[in-house]
Order: sequence, then C-alpha cells, then structure tokens
Amino acid sequence: MSRVTVLAGGVGGARFVRGLAHHLPGAEISVIANTGDDLWLAGLRVCPDLDSIMYTLGAANDEQRGWGRVGESERVSAELTAYGVGWPWFTLGDLDLGTHIARSALLRDGLTLTETTARLAARWNIGVRLLPVTDDEVETHVEIVDPETGAVRVIHFEEWWVRHRASVPARRFLHRGVDSATATEEALDALRTADIVLFAPSNPVVSIGTITAIPGITEAVRAASGPVIGIAPIIAGQAVRGMADACLRAIGVDTTASAVGRHYGAREAGGLLDGWLVDETDAASVAELEEAGIRTEAVPLWMTDVQASAAIAAAAVALAERLR
Amino acid sequence: MSRVTVLAGGVGGARFVRGLAHHLPGAEISVIANTGDDLWLAGLRVCPDLDSIMYTLGAANDEQRGWGRVGESERVSAELTAYGVGWPWFTLGDLDLGTHIARSALLRDGLTLTETTARLAARWNIGVRLLPVTDDEVETHVEIVDPETGAVRVIHFEEWWVRHRASVPARRFLHRGVDSATATEEALDALRTADIVLFAPSNPVVSIGTITAIPGITEAVRAASGPVIGIAPIIAGQAVRGMADACLRAIGVDTTASAVGRHYGAREAGGLLDGWLVDETDAASVAELEEAGIRTEAVPLWMTDVQASAAIAAAAVALAERLR
Repeated sequence: MSRVTVLAGGVGGARFVRGLAHHLPGAEISVIANTGDDLWLAGLRVCPDLDSIMYTLGAANDEQRGWGRVGESERVSAELTAYGVGWPWFTLGDLDLGTHIARSALLRDGLTLTETTARLAARWNIGVRLLPVTDDEVETHVEIVDPETGAVRVIHFEEWWVRHRASVPARRFLHRGVDSATATEEALDALRTADIVLFAPSNPVVSIGTITAIPGITEAVRAASGPVIGIAPIIAGQAVRGMADACLRAIGVDTTASAVGRHYGAREAGGLLDGWLVDETDAASVAELEEAGIRTEAVPLWMTDVQASAAIAAAAVALAERLR
Repeated sequence: MSRVTVLAGGVGGARFVRGLAHHLPGAEISVIANTGDDLWLAGLRVCPDLDSIMYTLGAANDEQRGWGRVGESERVSAELTAYGVGWPWFTLGDLDLGTHIARSALLRDGLTLTETTARLAARWNIGVRLLPVTDDEVETHVEIVDPETGAVRVIHFEEWWVRHRASVPARRFLHRGVDSATATEEALDALRTADIVLFAPSNPVVSIGTITAIPGITEAVRAASGPVIGIAPIIAGQAVRGMADACLRAIGVDTTASAVGRHYGAREAGGLLDGWLVDETDAASVAELEEAGIRTEAVPLWMTDVQASAAIAAAAVALAERLR
C-alpha cells in the first residue's frame, strides 16, 4: 500500500489525510481536492478546500476554531469592508490573504492551479501531493428561492454556505463551467496508479460530489485497479461537520451513512465504492450496504484527534487489503 | 481664489495640500497627482502618491514615520515573502494592502483610475478632489548600470528608490507608456478652470516632471488663465525630503532652489511658472530668478507642521494675487 489517493473536501478531508499520513508515514499520498468552493473575491482567487488541507498538513491551521490559520487577524478585511469592496460576511484573515494574493499573482503569471498549488504547498512541507481536481474554474452554485423576494436565484456556494448558513433550501447545485472542464492529468494519473483510492469523510454532495462531477474522475475511479474505500461523513444521522444534511436533501438522499454509501454505489454495480466504513453506532446498516454490493465495516469514526483519524485510516487501509 | 489646482507628488505634496486646505477652508481644491510611481505588485495596483495624499488628508497617515498608514502592521507582506511572491524589500502594510486590493478589484471591474480614486477617497472625507494625472499606466523607469554585472538595466522607479535608495546613479528616467497616454479630462479641466495653479514642493523630476510629461499637461499649464506658482522643494542646496538630488543629477540640474525654478522656466518665456517661492535661506537667488522672468519671494519653507504648511500656502496664494 505505498500509493494512496484520497478524494477530499476541506476541513474533514484535511483531518482524515493528516491521520492517513500519520498511519502510513512512508506512503506516497496524493490528495485530489475539491475546487468547487473556489471563487474570485475582490480580485483574489480563494480556494477554501486546498487551503484547509495545506494549512492542516502544514500545522498552520487553527485547530480550535476548526478552519483557517492559527494566530489569524482580520485587519485587511475590515479595510475592504470600509471601502465597500468584497463580501462583508465573508471575512478573509490577514495570513490567509497572503495565500490568496500569492496564488492570484502566480495564476496571473500563467501558472496552472496545479502548479500554483505545488508552489504554495512547498512552503509548508505538507508531505503529500496536493492536487486540485481541475485547473479549470468550475464553481458550485446553488439555486434557491430568495427568502425576501420569492424569486429563483442562483448564488455562489459560499454565499449559501457562509452567508445563509445553508438555511435557505437548496433546490439544486450547479457546477458552473463543468461542460468545458477536464480533470487534470495529475489527478487522473493519481487514480490510475493508486494501490488504494479513499473517499475522505467529506461532504458527499459539494465536496466528493463535485470532484466526481469533473469530467474524467468518475470513469477513473471506476477504472482504478486498486480498491476504492469510502468513509461515511454521517454518524447516527448527523453530519460529522458542516451542514451536509441541507446538501443531501437537495439531491434526495437521506442523511444516513447507509443512504450516502448507496448513493455512491457499488463499483461492481456501476457505482464508485468497493468498501465503506460506517461508525459503530451505524452498525445496523452494514447488512443493507453489503446487500448493495459494498463491503462495509463499522468502526469508530469520530476524528477527535490525530490518533483517532489515524485509526480510521488504518481501518480503511485494512479493509482495502482484504479486498485486493 | 475659490478654485485652486495643485500638481503634487506624494508625502511632500500631501503635506502642502493639507496646509493649503487649512488656509483656504472654503476653496475648491483639485490635486493632480503623480502616478509614475504606480506599479503592479503581486497582482495588486499600488499607487504610492495617490495614497500618501489620501491618507494624509484623511488623517490616517503615519505622521511619525512620514509615510503609510498610522497603526500599520505587516503580517500579509511576511506571508508573501514566505511564499516568494512580490518584492521582499518593498513591504506593503496590512491596512495599506486593503487599499491596494480594493483599488485592484475596482480597476478590474472596469472603473478608470480616476473613478477608482474617487471611490476610495470617499471613505476618507479628504475635502479635495484627488485626480490621477492620467488613467493610463505610465510608469517611471530608471536606466542604471547594474553595480554587480556592469550591464545597463532599466528598473522600475520604486526598485531604484526603495531597494537601491537612489544610490545607484540614474542615467535617465523613462516614462513607460507615455506615448499612448493622455491626461484625464478631469485633470485638464482642473487646470483650465483654476484661479491659481500651484506646484507643490514635490520632486521636480519624478513627481512634477512626470506629471508634466503626460501629454496635455504642459500645454494646459501654459494655457492656464490663472497664475502658476511653484514652491521650491530644495532648501539651501538640500532636498526637503527624499533623494531629489539623485534625480536632478540625472537631468543635469543643480540641487538648488534657483536651478529648479529656472528648470521649470518662466511662462512668459515658454516655461511653466509665473511665480516661485524659495526658502528665506535662499534669498540670494531671488535676483537671478526674477531676471529669468519668474517672480520670486523668499519665505520660510520648512513644512514642520500644518500651520507652517498653511503659511507657505498663504504666501503662494498672496503671490498669485499680486500676479493676477
């Protein structure tokens, strides 16, 4: 198991990958990250999930708050608000802005997002290959009924998530720009050459779902020669973090570990997974998942610290080994 | 004297305009600012002189240090340096970066620099019309002989000024982009309708000289219906601030109030000035300046505080009144 490729969203994905790297210190780990949350804001390219992973693996993340940089301040954002530029409800930390400015400058110099990400990550010695799923701009937008006007509107995912705290029902998610996008060669190659492919316990709709919506990824996961194991982001009917239930509702999937596993589906039946880890409290769902063709185990899934995350990664790797 | 238009560089120009506004509280003051020091750095448009004027008139400047924002910090710049992006010797303050990010976003939204400057300045209630001399990008570059390689190189003015502290001799100054540039209608109109035109005690080469190099400005100054009065930026053979001597040397002008006055020249002889204020220590030069056709007075020119700057402005206005 020397080559492991992980599909991951932001904070939850970052914690899982940190545990994985702890469990397999010598492995070559590639992380294919969601870029659907990315946006241009005040002329800067903000990539929330790439940065969550980079900061967490670089030990620069704010562990207490759960996101962003440790020791953060918000002086620049206050200036932008005073000038009426940007989104006043979307505060960018000063240290974080350094990343966005550097990224935007590199992108404007003509580097791809993959190259830019490698340049930025080099500073942090993150120990894994961090790969945006695509170099194209594919942004997740959300169709809502405006609570004030009653009109149907489409807003950027971050506006729905951060401004509205996902409290306005999402009618559907759109992947703006997906038709002309492709997965990067680096991401496809990481799937092709992996001994195991893992789905981090990230949001099944707007993290993993966005990654697999990028042309080329679903086919590459289905064609992967190593087993594909997912970790449920739902424990006892609750999202481990974030507001996954509001996302799942929009695509008609119940907020249960079982429903999410069956939503991904068994590879042998044209789906994406060979194996699935559910929390021990969801052990009752193992039977129906196995019936759906997904080899399932129930283990503790709360990522309370690095050791707990490493144990989850270990369980996923062990399941993969049994499935090889 | 209800309409006064001032040609100004950065810090010195800002202090002079502050004194002028103090002396003429009811006047309509337009400031035509140098934009030759402007640059794109890490994807952000930095306009040092516009910002010096805006911060000073907005009472947000760092009076002690002499430039930038009061209460400044430099957390973002440290991040950029850690990523290897930008110029490590050109530190941008966090609060100042707020301005650059906002400006760059507005410019990318399609606003002109004039419109952008008005939007930014609105926050600060600066009490004057702050007008970039041009909406085109005309950047001052400096031809030097590289001290390490011996090769002739052309570098941005800020690299010469800030990194090399103007210690590498300037062979000449270039106005990159000037051929396709024009002064703004707003700037030309401010000269056309002014009761007085004033040259702030700014650098005669890279501030005032850059403003008058913009197509349309020299002609408009010559055609101004009100008197044109300059304030010497040189006192007793020393630049009041900055390294004006290194700039004057490159254009073959002595670092004296008299030589700078004669360099501008008398309007009646095809030059730019009707009147000129020199410091009282330079009173001996009055005769030769008057002989050159420039009405000259010697008054205290050190802008030690707002009152001193206001007294200088008062002397300039009084001289203009005598010349009408």
